[in-house]
Amino acid sequence: MISENYLQMVKQAQYQLRGHKTKSMKDEMAIFNTLKDCQMPDVYGKGEVIEAFQNTLSKEFNKQSAVFFPSGTMAQQIALRIWCDQKGLMCVAYHPLCHLEIHEQDGIKELHHIDTVLLGEKDHLFTIDDLKNMKDVAAVLFELPQREIGGQLPSWNELIEMTAYCKERGIRTHLDGARLYECLPYYQKTPSEVGELFDSIYISFYKGFGSITGAMLIGDEEIIREAKIWKRRLGGDLYHLYPYIVPAADLFAKRKGKMAEYYEYAKAYALKLSSIKGISIHPTIPVSNMFHVHFNDTAERVMTQMIDVMKMEGVALFGGINATAEGFAKTEISIGDNYGLIEESIIDKAIERLRIIRS
Amino acid sequence: MISENYLQMVKQAQYQLRGHKTKSMKDEMAIFNTLKDCQMPDVYGKGEVIEAFQNTLSKEFNKQSAVFFPSGTMAQQIALRIWCDQKGLMCVAYHPLCHLEIHEQDGIKELHHIDTVLLGEKDHLFTIDDLKNMKDVAAVLFELPQREIGGQLPSWNELIEMTAYCKERGIRTHLDGARLYECLPYYQKTPSEVGELFDSIYISFYKGFGSITGAMLIGDEEIIREAKIWKRRLGGDLYHLYPYIVPAADLFAKRKGKMAEYYEYAKAYALKLSSIKGISIHPTIPVSNMFHVHFNDTAERVMTQMIDVMKMEGVALFGGINATAEGFAKTEISIGDNYGLIEESIIDKAIERLRIIRS
Repeated sequence: MISENYLQMVKQAQYQLRGHKTKSMKDEMAIFNTLKDCQMPDVYGKGEVIEAFQNTLSKEFNKQSAVFFPSGTMAQQIALRIWCDQKGLMCVAYHPLCHLEIHEQDGIKELHHIDTVLLGEKDHLFTIDDLKNMKDVAAVLFELPQREIGGQLPSWNELIEMTAYCKERGIRTHLDGARLYECLPYYQKTPSEVGELFDSIYISFYKGFGSITGAMLIGDEEIIREAKIWKRRLGGDLYHLYPYIVPAADLFAKRKGKMAEYYEYAKAYALKLSSIKGISIHPTIPVSNMFHVHFNDTAERVMTQMIDVMKMEGVALFGGINATAEGFAKTEISIGDNYGLIEESIIDKAIERLRIIRS
Repeated sequence: MISENYLQMVKQAQYQLRGHKTKSMKDEMAIFNTLKDCQMPDVYGKGEVIEAFQNTLSKEFNKQSAVFFPSGTMAQQIALRIWCDQKGLMCVAYHPLCHLEIHEQDGIKELHHIDTVLLGEKDHLFTIDDLKNMKDVAAVLFELPQREIGGQLPSWNELIEMTAYCKERGIRTHLDGARLYECLPYYQKTPSEVGELFDSIYISFYKGFGSITGAMLIGDEEIIREAKIWKRRLGGDLYHLYPYIVPAADLFAKRKGKMAEYYEYAKAYALKLSSIKGISIHPTIPVSNMFHVHFNDTAERVMTQMIDVMKMEGVALFGGINATAEGFAKTEISIGDNYGLIEESIIDKAIERLRIIRS
């Protein structure tokens, strides 16, 4: 009840700090008006529009090939299935809060009969020690940044050590890079430097890039050739994929260079919020455009406070507020174009208002 | 070589007899310019735009529920998987040339571990006798019309007999209705009369309806609720599906009433073609908007003949010409908006030209 009121007010607030501008269907598809009359659809994975975008991404990561998928769920299951079949070992390892474990209705198990090893604990990243204590698997999935714990990252050296450990043991390294571009400014690395560490890479276009839907799987020729067969098996080899590809290619080009800005804003915003008593930020200093905010309050109380902030300052500081297992409030912040469009004084006034309300 | 020349000429021919007008990406997406600024995207299967279209289809078939899928491949595998799991018997029966058997890289076997019984022979429909000789299965897939053999149909009474036989034995009936609306004018039946015969129904929106991509699975509440879980498992529960839904809903409404016209044109066109020596039509009299054309000639010779017809009359009578196992030429005709836009005398002149060239 309060949750509905709160979310309705967030939607209508004058200032949105998170994400990109919310667009109608008409606005999102307006990009198609800029195309030429001669630009024709892709057909079952063939055609200029899909092949050009696939080439762009394979070059970015200095890999031989890439294939566009309607979803990351499909792309990642397929990559892991191929690595398992190749090794004749139906088992992979990943973090207990990775997308496959908590958001896909167990597709990897129900569809592919792949066993999973959970690496490390729910509240922090897995480490080289977790890998060393792991039984043999066909592949390890690394998620950079680890979304469900606020977008934490291993250091670059830890990442090199962990991926090298896997490769030495004939274990494939797969990257869940749904938000990879968002953390490259922290690592100060290029996509191809990341590409060197992984056998297969998945990128999403509707997180920081803010496109409609869609994913890319990137790797060497052999896995991508096999992935296209699996794409047909899962019903992802759609007659036309261009409604997702054209916006994704456009926003990939436009926002790739803006990730550093989003990262700086995330750090600035996190710093402001962390000055308020009873609020903590995870990770303490963001390492991408995202972070989690934890409160020493119930979700209901935080929503009540936020409704007051919105009424008085017109600013939606947060989106949905959830309850943790311990009954405290928690929210996720992802920074996009919106933050930079708002004068800092307006943000500061809203933060001050929240401080007063909570004091 | 000749095949490339031929297809290039078909594409550029002044008159296209088959299908609908070929559209650019820009033209196909122009529908979005007619939306209101307040019309917002669906989000993971929720929202006005997807729910309204799902309701339209479930009402059409007088079923409790429906769910939109990015592809029929995904929708049908899921329906059959649910029926198999429900019965605890991982086996279904279908025609040897059905989509699952020849166009899906064995997804039903590789992903779902479902065994298949092939009903009847490759050159004709299966019958009640084939069902009576069949071992026990969880479901039978009926494809109306049976595309790969020219779009043949059982009589309505045979269909009632066969589906009743299945139901009596606790075997689920699934309809591959990719082109169902295209054959309703022949049956003179409503969708809900068809719906009575089947436990689950799949409809495609980019065959006769000529939309971009997308499918609907229709059935009772329980199967659709489970199908939504499987949709997520297979990676089909996309963030936004509206780029496929908006055009599909528009063209479904616009072309539903035109299927009778396409059917009449198909019969007229088939009659004209069958008057030429060495050409045979399957089925002899079309029962939908589609039919197959067989020639007593090689594909190469037919393409050479067609190039001459196009040079002299500007008419592309056929699309791609394929070789049968026996080395003869074969092509598929599907009638859409194009046929009715061309004056009959132009079609007749092209037919006469073909007759002369082949005599």
